[in-house]
Amino acid sequence: MTTFSQSYVTCFKTSSLTREGGDRWRRICGFKMINGASAAMMRSRTTMSAAPMVGVNGKVALERAIIPTKKQFVDPFRQGVIILDGVGYRQTVVVRSYEVGTDKTVTPQSILNLLQETALNHVWMSGLLGDGFGATHGMMKNNLIWVVSRMQVQLDQYPIWGEILEIDTWVGASGKNGMRRDWEIRSHTTGIVFARATSTWVMMNKKTRRLSKMPDEVRAEISPWFIKKEAIKEDSPEKIGKLDDNARYVNSGLQPKRSDLDMNCHVNNVKYVGWMLEVIPDECLENYQLSEIILEYRRECGSSDVVESLCEPEQVGIIKDGVQDDEQDLDLMHRCSIGAGFIQGAGLLNCLMNEGTIRYTHLLQVKEELKCQEIVRGKTTWRKRLNLYSFSG
Amino acid sequence: MTTFSQSYVTCFKTSSLTREGGDRWRRICGFKMINGASAAMMRSRTTMSAAPMVGVNGKVALERAIIPTKKQFVDPFRQGVIILDGVGYRQTVVVRSYEVGTDKTVTPQSILNLLQETALNHVWMSGLLGDGFGATHGMMKNNLIWVVSRMQVQLDQYPIWGEILEIDTWVGASGKNGMRRDWEIRSHTTGIVFARATSTWVMMNKKTRRLSKMPDEVRAEISPWFIKKEAIKEDSPEKIGKLDDNARYVNSGLQPKRSDLDMNCHVNNVKYVGWMLEVIPDECLENYQLSEIILEYRRECGSSDVVESLCEPEQVGIIKDGVQDDEQDLDLMHRCSIGAGFIQGAGLLNCLMNEGTIRYTHLLQVKEELKCQEIVRGKTTWRKRLNLYSFSG
Repeated sequence: MTTFSQSYVTCFKTSSLTREGGDRWRRICGFKMINGASAAMMRSRTTMSAAPMVGVNGKVALERAIIPTKKQFVDPFRQGVIILDGVGYRQTVVVRSYEVGTDKTVTPQSILNLLQETALNHVWMSGLLGDGFGATHGMMKNNLIWVVSRMQVQLDQYPIWGEILEIDTWVGASGKNGMRRDWEIRSHTTGIVFARATSTWVMMNKKTRRLSKMPDEVRAEISPWFIKKEAIKEDSPEKIGKLDDNARYVNSGLQPKRSDLDMNCHVNNVKYVGWMLEVIPDECLENYQLSEIILEYRRECGSSDVVESLCEPEQVGIIKDGVQDDEQDLDLMHRCSIGAGFIQGAGLLNCLMNEGTIRYTHLLQVKEELKCQEIVRGKTTWRKRLNLYSFSG
Repeated sequence: MTTFSQSYVTCFKTSSLTREGGDRWRRICGFKMINGASAAMMRSRTTMSAAPMVGVNGKVALERAIIPTKKQFVDPFRQGVIILDGVGYRQTVVVRSYEVGTDKTVTPQSILNLLQETALNHVWMSGLLGDGFGATHGMMKNNLIWVVSRMQVQLDQYPIWGEILEIDTWVGASGKNGMRRDWEIRSHTTGIVFARATSTWVMMNKKTRRLSKMPDEVRAEISPWFIKKEAIKEDSPEKIGKLDDNARYVNSGLQPKRSDLDMNCHVNNVKYVGWMLEVIPDECLENYQLSEIILEYRRECGSSDVVESLCEPEQVGIIKDGVQDDEQDLDLMHRCSIGAGFIQGAGLLNCLMNEGTIRYTHLLQVKEELKCQEIVRGKTTWRKRLNLYSFSG
């Protein structure tokens, strides 16, 4: 395996100019800093560089987005703050109207978008950001980009429209040459944890497209940010088997649209999840809610690739045929309550998950003339939809 | 014409409960209020109601999103503030990594998402919000929902990834029974206006699906918010002709996916724009950038409709066949500079737009057995892509 999806990475040319922003940038902004420092103070003691934006026609855009060249402790506009003794990042976000689905809960795709956004803002705050998509100055010097090899998201409870969230993210070592990035999404109001996520990243030479060791120069940049803290504990990650053409559900002829391409001109990660979820049968989508997704990236998907989404169910627990009637619901909830006292929110959900879940194995592949090229293997877990809100008040 | 798209409106059952939020909601938040009042002050003097959320299984979700029942002047989490002598709304937003396209500029779809978001947050702040998608208490009592009949967006310059924006929005009367909503999107750093938008809204009885007069009760709620201020001045809006099957570009068989449906279980507005733009030929998308879009809504699109996107070019100005070489670019820019001194940013773009643009007429329709049902008529204007950043520094 020599290539991965590079959904989160960029390979644009960049440049760096020292400058101070315009008058409006220097004016005292309307927000008090979270740690007590004012925005004006932060900016006056910090050298900023113009964002190394590649605009239309490949030239650099100046004077607009301003990427810090030194560590920032707070960003009033992103509503971000450095946490965890100076190495983690927390961002407060409000769930927007277009981030929710028909039931007014956040879509899995929006969750993945927010994970990407907070990860990049963490690097932004670190002062290490050398280009647009998360690579450090040292990585750029060595022609390296980040590629994600694994992503796992657990959704205990779905945030709803208008809800205020806190998203924490931090990084750690993964083996000798990799990086782990974790997230925790909580309700700002109650502190209840809605979701946890973890991911593994390695470096790739952007010319040879081969994986690379982490150069000492880069290790020196990023290792001071590493901590040992796991949002999801798992000693030996479950292996995802490879599906073949006998898979029960198949969607063929999936083609990326222009709007599916990100800053890398590659199909974004979130689109992969969309393709995986589209093949799930309606009776599952109507009665169940995604509670976990695991993605293993194998290779990147280009803009001209035609993708096939395969999916095979694996049912566990007490639910048969993807259908469960109301009487069963009540019985299940009764047993959960008896078993663990009065169980709220995530606790009840965990109980339900143990009692009845549906799991699917997924594969996204590109069919070429002689063989199939794997893009992503995946595993999704689904729990029965219930009206949980009346239990969480 | 009796029905419109109801992309922005909701028809969920709602309820309202007076409550104070949890301890964490009452704690003093980390942001100073824009107008000097603290969040704790705002909350202590305000009666809040639980958001009338309809969760899974049609039950109401409590205790999570909290919709104000009285006018708020500031929202630190949405980074919103009431402006324009108490009737307008301003929100500060940072362009997120997943809101930009391959050239790192915001996509038109993301612009429309932000317009929807700020409009809803304006109603949220007003204390009038009776349900999830913008209807007031009086409208709910009268079984009325908002439907949008026209939308026009002018994009002078595209915001880029990481850029800080200020989005202003306000409302005014439109005829006797309608409402106009306008927006202005500016750079927070420089104050330069990037985009302007205007829209027209009417009320529909959600049971009869017929347009309704504005009841006095509703007029009393919303008319104190009306001002005479136009983001885009136009005395007589241009009429958009109806295309037929002879249109040059046609995309057929467009089917909404589950993820295209919004809180109303209807295809979202932004999806319509996606379908309109997908039919535009590649040579235009590569060399030109959308500078204006006008949408006229005719009827809503259901989740089972199969849509056809038609498009007919109308070329004006000096550009022929959608191609213009570099020598022509320089000549055009030279003439712009001579004509108006040194023209920066939007000024230069306006000059270019006058000199060379491409326009398309659009139609989205649903083909039924005997006839076609129009969903949206549209008009898009495109200007040549140039490396403008080197001129705006």
